[in-house]
Amino acid sequence: MSIQGIHHVTIIGVGLLGGSTGLAIKALGGGIRVAGVGRRAGSLRAALKIGAIDSAHMDVAQAVGPSDLVILATPVGAFEHCLRAIRPHLKKGAVVTDVGSTKGAVVRLASRVLGPGGPFVGSHPMAGSERRGPAFARADLLAGATCILTPTAQTPPASVRRVEAFWRALGMRTLRMSPQAHDRAVAEISHLPQALASLLMLLPKAGHLKIAAGGFRDMTRLAGSDAQMWRDIFLTNPAAILDVMDRFDRSLARLRELVKRGDSRGLEKFFVAAKSRRSKTVARKHQEV
Amino acid sequence: MSIQGIHHVTIIGVGLLGGSTGLAIKALGGGIRVAGVGRRAGSLRAALKIGAIDSAHMDVAQAVGPSDLVILATPVGAFEHCLRAIRPHLKKGAVVTDVGSTKGAVVRLASRVLGPGGPFVGSHPMAGSERRGPAFARADLLAGATCILTPTAQTPPASVRRVEAFWRALGMRTLRMSPQAHDRAVAEISHLPQALASLLMLLPKAGHLKIAAGGFRDMTRLAGSDAQMWRDIFLTNPAAILDVMDRFDRSLARLRELVKRGDSRGLEKFFVAAKSRRSKTVARKHQEV
Repeated sequence: MSIQGIHHVTIIGVGLLGGSTGLAIKALGGGIRVAGVGRRAGSLRAALKIGAIDSAHMDVAQAVGPSDLVILATPVGAFEHCLRAIRPHLKKGAVVTDVGSTKGAVVRLASRVLGPGGPFVGSHPMAGSERRGPAFARADLLAGATCILTPTAQTPPASVRRVEAFWRALGMRTLRMSPQAHDRAVAEISHLPQALASLLMLLPKAGHLKIAAGGFRDMTRLAGSDAQMWRDIFLTNPAAILDVMDRFDRSLARLRELVKRGDSRGLEKFFVAAKSRRSKTVARKHQEV
Repeated sequence: MSIQGIHHVTIIGVGLLGGSTGLAIKALGGGIRVAGVGRRAGSLRAALKIGAIDSAHMDVAQAVGPSDLVILATPVGAFEHCLRAIRPHLKKGAVVTDVGSTKGAVVRLASRVLGPGGPFVGSHPMAGSERRGPAFARADLLAGATCILTPTAQTPPASVRRVEAFWRALGMRTLRMSPQAHDRAVAEISHLPQALASLLMLLPKAGHLKIAAGGFRDMTRLAGSDAQMWRDIFLTNPAAILDVMDRFDRSLARLRELVKRGDSRGLEKFFVAAKSRRSKTVARKHQEV
């Protein structure tokens, strides 16, 4: 069995997402071979042990040769190095994708290194957690979640369909956006929340953290995420993040005015609007009661 | 059996916290009578049905007479009305407390209505959820959580000890703070998180909410909380909330500068600091892996 002619996949970076992708491929049971590439022998051993990869490699050249699909699953900051390393070894017809959280800079980089209209199709599987490493990988991490693909006018349609078929075979819903539209959307629903969680975590006086309850714990959960990954995300999506920070700052200033004026109706309206919007969207989608 | 001479308790407001308090008292099995007061017959019926109260009353006067302890568990905005209603009916030696989320304004109000050095001891059980109503009440909602008591120099020490013993009997840890110190602490660890959750919920463009994943869902969970309750909290703790908003705003501006400058080391340092602080405090306390 194969997915659109994909018989062999190389995953570069066998952490939470890379490892989960490998597990999901192997769970299909179609005999697709998965080669894993990593810098740490410990992570590779762990990925082998849980069955996320069939072979472990510290050398990209060795792994990539037979691959129909290469997936970059390292932090975005390592993508340039990875792309340069795989370029000489890609077989004809192979497609390259990634699981990075920003797309504009990544797609530009891939176009520069592999050529415009080259084998790269940007992907962003919207799944994960604040945990990292293959120890937290799960075969069902991706299933049911959304994967955004970000082809450009230069991307060959057949490559887009192939990558799309791949993520769908793993149970994901796929949708297409331009890299720029993607970056604006995730700045709102992912990058800003990360900034707020980390800022909130650093704000309280030390003594006050002792009485923090469930709300504070949930609101700061994202602050436990991998710092290097988030550094790279904030470095590669500055325009959209600055814009969303500005809008947040203006809405915070408006709320501040309501508090300062003791505006009872305005405050109630604010909390009602947020509650109502959540119940119609996020809560409904996630089927909370 | 009684707790420090408490044989009869009146709970005014049989919602999530009031209902859970009733259930926890009854779960002690010591025969303490619990009278519930509410404005809605439906809530009172629900509270009776789950066994959170022994008798249901829509008239405060009727319920309060035999009580050794009266607990205000309505939204803070209704406290003045409740205090005036119970005042003529309190028996000698009865103690009054509350479960409100702000304490400075509440303690001042109670002192004005019941007299300084009167029967009021402020309490803030740090438990709850974004759900409301007796349907979500649980006998174990309070157990293991912290209850902050906010006596003043005028509060009779015996009354403080009595209220302290009461919450401890229900499995809570108790600690004492001044009303002002309490309000500054909860502005940081509860009121600011609520503001951020609601602001974040209102920020994204409608189309972008469709791709929101688990992080956004968790970061906006608090936005689903009761709007009237939060209006009252923001109306009764403005000084501490404005101060904490200002500090948050300054830290957001500093993060904005790091993004604008593309400051890789600064961004990494920021995310590392937040992650490290969380793992040493909140994550450890809640025994997350």
